[in-house]
Amino acid sequence: MRKVALTGSGLTKFTKEDISIDSLMLLAVKSLFESMPNLSQKDIDVVLTSTNDNTKYLSSIVSEISGIAPKISHSVESLCNSGANSAISAFSYIASGLADIALVVGAERFDSPGLVLEWDKSRGQYKHPIYWSSMFTKSHIRKYGTSKEDLAIVSAKNHKNALDNPYAYFEKTYSVDEIMNSKNLTDDVRLLDCSLPCSGSAAILLASEEAVKKLTDTPVWITGIGQKTLSAGFTKNAELASMESTIDAASMAYKMAKKEPSHIDVAEVHDAFSICEIIEVEDLGFIKKGKGNEFVRTLYETQDRRINPRGGLIGAGHPLGATGIAQIVEIGQQLQGKAGKRQMSQAEVGLVQNMSAAATSSSVLILQS
Amino acid sequence: MRKVALTGSGLTKFTKEDISIDSLMLLAVKSLFESMPNLSQKDIDVVLTSTNDNTKYLSSIVSEISGIAPKISHSVESLCNSGANSAISAFSYIASGLADIALVVGAERFDSPGLVLEWDKSRGQYKHPIYWSSMFTKSHIRKYGTSKEDLAIVSAKNHKNALDNPYAYFEKTYSVDEIMNSKNLTDDVRLLDCSLPCSGSAAILLASEEAVKKLTDTPVWITGIGQKTLSAGFTKNAELASMESTIDAASMAYKMAKKEPSHIDVAEVHDAFSICEIIEVEDLGFIKKGKGNEFVRTLYETQDRRINPRGGLIGAGHPLGATGIAQIVEIGQQLQGKAGKRQMSQAEVGLVQNMSAAATSSSVLILQS
Repeated sequence: MRKVALTGSGLTKFTKEDISIDSLMLLAVKSLFESMPNLSQKDIDVVLTSTNDNTKYLSSIVSEISGIAPKISHSVESLCNSGANSAISAFSYIASGLADIALVVGAERFDSPGLVLEWDKSRGQYKHPIYWSSMFTKSHIRKYGTSKEDLAIVSAKNHKNALDNPYAYFEKTYSVDEIMNSKNLTDDVRLLDCSLPCSGSAAILLASEEAVKKLTDTPVWITGIGQKTLSAGFTKNAELASMESTIDAASMAYKMAKKEPSHIDVAEVHDAFSICEIIEVEDLGFIKKGKGNEFVRTLYETQDRRINPRGGLIGAGHPLGATGIAQIVEIGQQLQGKAGKRQMSQAEVGLVQNMSAAATSSSVLILQS
Repeated sequence: MRKVALTGSGLTKFTKEDISIDSLMLLAVKSLFESMPNLSQKDIDVVLTSTNDNTKYLSSIVSEISGIAPKISHSVESLCNSGANSAISAFSYIASGLADIALVVGAERFDSPGLVLEWDKSRGQYKHPIYWSSMFTKSHIRKYGTSKEDLAIVSAKNHKNALDNPYAYFEKTYSVDEIMNSKNLTDDVRLLDCSLPCSGSAAILLASEEAVKKLTDTPVWITGIGQKTLSAGFTKNAELASMESTIDAASMAYKMAKKEPSHIDVAEVHDAFSICEIIEVEDLGFIKKGKGNEFVRTLYETQDRRINPRGGLIGAGHPLGATGIAQIVEIGQQLQGKAGKRQMSQAEVGLVQNMSAAATSSSVLILQS
């Protein structure tokens, strides 16, 4: 398998703007090119687009408006996990030798058709994601004594981290009390425990070991990849206080990278709702099962940014097809030492966890400077 | 790069049936499993779905209803060329070492949202594909003297070939006169010169060299891959009597496979319209530029099935996301000696050419027994 590195990235501000999907993608691609003076459109072998938008032929459209005529070009969709899937697909084109340089751009509009999984009839009228997150929350409360305050702490921490992310949707902090007193959407989920669908785009450039040399002095190598799909329907989840697909994906990624959870200096995890981050830090092995609540509390109290330094989905916003790519952008910047005010000291190994639809599928990537 | 083989396939009948996209895909997957007694659901690392349908999370849905819990799973879209793109993506997952066995299933409904490229404002009111095919036709007529009869011969030949394809939409032949006298859609395109959007599905199973052993005694190796995207908009085509993206993709595929056009024993080419096959046999190098008209006439007169033995898109029907996969199924069966009445003698090297949107992008695969 050929080595593959992340060499550069681009982002748009996450907003509620009514802007076309191709325009969103073009803005992220433009931002990527502006930050990579040695990159020419002619260098690019692959353009993959990641979105739930219904626009057809989007990768060719984005290629054309970006002045790129790639070899390989198509769209990738897997709901909220489209971003990591498209990055891993690009990885495989390069690792196999079919390509040398791949541009991956994810974007979503605030009114994405991927917000609710219409197919899952097993959810009855409870199709909106707040219902599965409510069941995950109730389950973790019962089994591990997680409190409403623990949940609010995730949101308070991530909103605080997002303040130093110039691309984040939210530009203000919330106190734990404000979050606990925000509107109850279900028994256990409050409005400020939820990530917000929004408009935004993120782009990354992956390259082979040989191609890296021209592009950057600070490549970030993708050394571990794990993915697992259990089902599409929510009711196939055996256990609601953990995420089996994340456990499986993490296990594969750690094995491939020859790393342990204790080696991870910084991670972006898929906090679609507060409960997700608490479960994920457990299932990624950062802390013992059932202690995720204490773990996030300590992070908050010590102002430790190691989990979701850009503010996660809760603080930065959740443009579905862009989210996995934006997570990779953040870990890349952290490992390159280019994360500005958000910079973790001595970050050498990072992790991205991106998932879809009540964690029926998950992807985990491990990156190293 | 690890070797990758086609090991098995499944098809549905192509129809105008009003059937859901997941049900269509399940039928093709079921047919594939029935033909592969040594294959278990647990063996499958990758499930990719190829379609223009707007259903989200389709690869996870198809995985669940097929009893598969893969590692990697997502949808691939690139209009009419989605099928070849998804097959090549699966190839790269295996070639890179990320996976060993990949199921790729393409499907479309007769009322696909991919039938017209809404984005291409450069076409004005002439968005329907009959208009670009009409311009290609006019251009080839002017430049190379191609006649209405030459065009009708492509359709007559492919409808005749489709008679021996039990999965084809069309079940009758048409005389050259009937085709020439069918309804004029534009000055140069008649109804029977067009492929018909329909409902249908096709599935293939790709495997690594090691995994092949368990699955089949007659693997078909994918030895050449070429792809090129020029643009999305039709007006970027420099020349209307040829397909630049196909020329580029073919050149890459021949080089990778170390083959010449003269080595190709049997080919599936993307005859969305009669003119396409005439241009493609030229641009794939089977005959000198401008002589495609004479080439197809000779095939017809000598009952030579080497181009589009299953009847092509014109004879078999064109379920967009399934087409590229169905083309690969046919070449696989030809090289395995399992093509029944359609079997070419001594077919050892085959080619698939799949393209999108006025050949603004093309994919070419070379397969060998």
